Amino acid sequence: MTIGEGNSAYGHKEFRRSRSHFTDRVTADGRDGWPVEPGRYRLVVSRACPWASRAVIVRRLLGLDHALSLAVADPIQDDRSWRFTLDPDGRDPVLGIRFLKEAYDARETGYPGGVSVPAIVDEPSGQLVTNDYQRITLDLATEWAALHRDGAPDLYPAALREEIDEVMAGVYEDVNNGVYKAGFATRQKEYEEACAAVFRRLEVLSERLAGQRYLVGDTITEADIRLFTTLVRFDAVYHGHFKCNRWKLAEDPVLWAYARDLFQTPGFGDTVDFDHIKRHYHQVHTGINPTGIVPLGPDLSGWLSPHGREDLGGRPFGDGTPPGPVRASEVVPPQGRP
Amino acid sequence: MTIGEGNSAYGHKEFRRSRSHFTDRVTADGRDGWPVEPGRYRLVVSRACPWASRAVIVRRLLGLDHALSLAVADPIQDDRSWRFTLDPDGRDPVLGIRFLKEAYDARETGYPGGVSVPAIVDEPSGQLVTNDYQRITLDLATEWAALHRDGAPDLYPAALREEIDEVMAGVYEDVNNGVYKAGFATRQKEYEEACAAVFRRLEVLSERLAGQRYLVGDTITEADIRLFTTLVRFDAVYHGHFKCNRWKLAEDPVLWAYARDLFQTPGFGDTVDFDHIKRHYHQVHTGINPTGIVPLGPDLSGWLSPHGREDLGGRPFGDGTPPGPVRASEVVPPQGRP
Repeated sequence: MTIGEGNSAYGHKEFRRSRSHFTDRVTADGRDGWPVEPGRYRLVVSRACPWASRAVIVRRLLGLDHALSLAVADPIQDDRSWRFTLDPDGRDPVLGIRFLKEAYDARETGYPGGVSVPAIVDEPSGQLVTNDYQRITLDLATEWAALHRDGAPDLYPAALREEIDEVMAGVYEDVNNGVYKAGFATRQKEYEEACAAVFRRLEVLSERLAGQRYLVGDTITEADIRLFTTLVRFDAVYHGHFKCNRWKLAEDPVLWAYARDLFQTPGFGDTVDFDHIKRHYHQVHTGINPTGIVPLGPDLSGWLSPHGREDLGGRPFGDGTPPGPVRASEVVPPQGRP
Repeated sequence: MTIGEGNSAYGHKEFRRSRSHFTDRVTADGRDGWPVEPGRYRLVVSRACPWASRAVIVRRLLGLDHALSLAVADPIQDDRSWRFTLDPDGRDPVLGIRFLKEAYDARETGYPGGVSVPAIVDEPSGQLVTNDYQRITLDLATEWAALHRDGAPDLYPAALREEIDEVMAGVYEDVNNGVYKAGFATRQKEYEEACAAVFRRLEVLSERLAGQRYLVGDTITEADIRLFTTLVRFDAVYHGHFKCNRWKLAEDPVLWAYARDLFQTPGFGDTVDFDHIKRHYHQVHTGINPTGIVPLGPDLSGWLSPHGREDLGGRPFGDGTPPGPVRASEVVPPQGRP
């Protein structure tokens, strides 16, 4: 994302997350005009962004890195939003553009809304296809099945979708988006309601995960991915910067072990860039952190410590296998790792 | 305090704590014109302020509440600094003034400096005697000895002063004042140096306290009081608001047990008002926290949990005894307590 995230920190209105404007889908049958094809689309993300990070994890777990290329934006946006300043000459080497906004403009002239990641861009035309953060990963898990690697897990198994959707709805409302509602609140009451809801939901999830390794069934699903992307940012940015500070993730033994278990699973921790995460939140949100100073903490070494969750059983990849090593061009630099 | 604390958050210069301007001493022999006398002086504090809280603790441990009256300022200052808005009609009932600044003005017309707590005011003349935060507590422990209660501990024993002074010097530089240097830094490098020094020193102190109950000797001394007033604020304000977030106090088993041990000792925790602490820092420092939102966390219940430090031996009050109950008029309201 960022659609409307920043603005809400300055006016006296409740934080509201914008709905995605571009909701075309890339499908197996191409019914929206965008058929699944290897090598045709580019996934644009920021490693700072939890919504985009879902897609980075799913792409890697499913082995779609061979079919769907990846562009990583600079964690620091300017007033033209996400930009490719990490690339040579400040241009995405495939799309040839400097700002993700250019792909939005190519799709719809004069689009007045915000620019957000994750975004899927059609390489031949340079047009944005979708920025529908709630849908992209589900389509990667289902519509893109023909291009999955051998041994790819089923992240959205048909028999469990009702339960997965229900769990994800609560996680979205109170956790994924809840931390933003707390962090961007401009009134005490609004903050307190959001912060209380964050911890109420985390406590429910902690109880649920005390006796089972994953949120739904006995394998990793989309629900785990969506909870993980918030948990991995919790102590680094949400606890202090967003004032979700009743306790640190590291103080809840169950959730902390659950998050470390996923972090240490191929496809999760190897996509996380704490440097991008910390710099993005602390330097971009000047309405919350006017000095732009990026905290030194927290100590990240704990992410690599033993978690003991294997004792709960579970089959991380079900009948599948873990993904192989990260592509050399996509390895997170040392300063972003624990 | 606050002398110059606020300003430094806005300009691009390193945080520097002002030296006290009024350094007269109240002594047994009255050599500065201010002899120790029961019922003559008023100690003005904010329970939010760590420098003033030292004096609140020392006064209570020594039983000086019978000789030296206490005025508690509102934790929220306005542009006229500390004010008595908690009192009926917004006036201190003894001094009759609305702002501590009036006692400064009574002492020195047109004094252009900042107004800080702790302050000792001469009740008959309404004049400020001293705001020398480094000296006031040492004088209460020594010069005021004739007025100590029976069983008062020796907080600054002559035989240990060299060691106490040395420990306190390091604690002052890196911890008491170090958290402010980190929190008010306007440049990344300045912040990082201060924050690193905070945790370096805390680690040294943690090692020292692993095998001994108190910092110097086997009893509570001024050194413990000065470390305590920063530790008790650490997770509530310094960790998030001042970005001293390598770890929470609650994550260091030794320092956390040490701080809880003191908190549960009569004279320490019963003087602490977390409501005043949290509101002061988060609502006054708008340069750091523009929304003025006060975090809900951290969970304070841990302060009352068993600490196990009795196993290290030590004699909290030496040959003396704990102080009795808090005077009814000075009890911290429920919203300020864990």
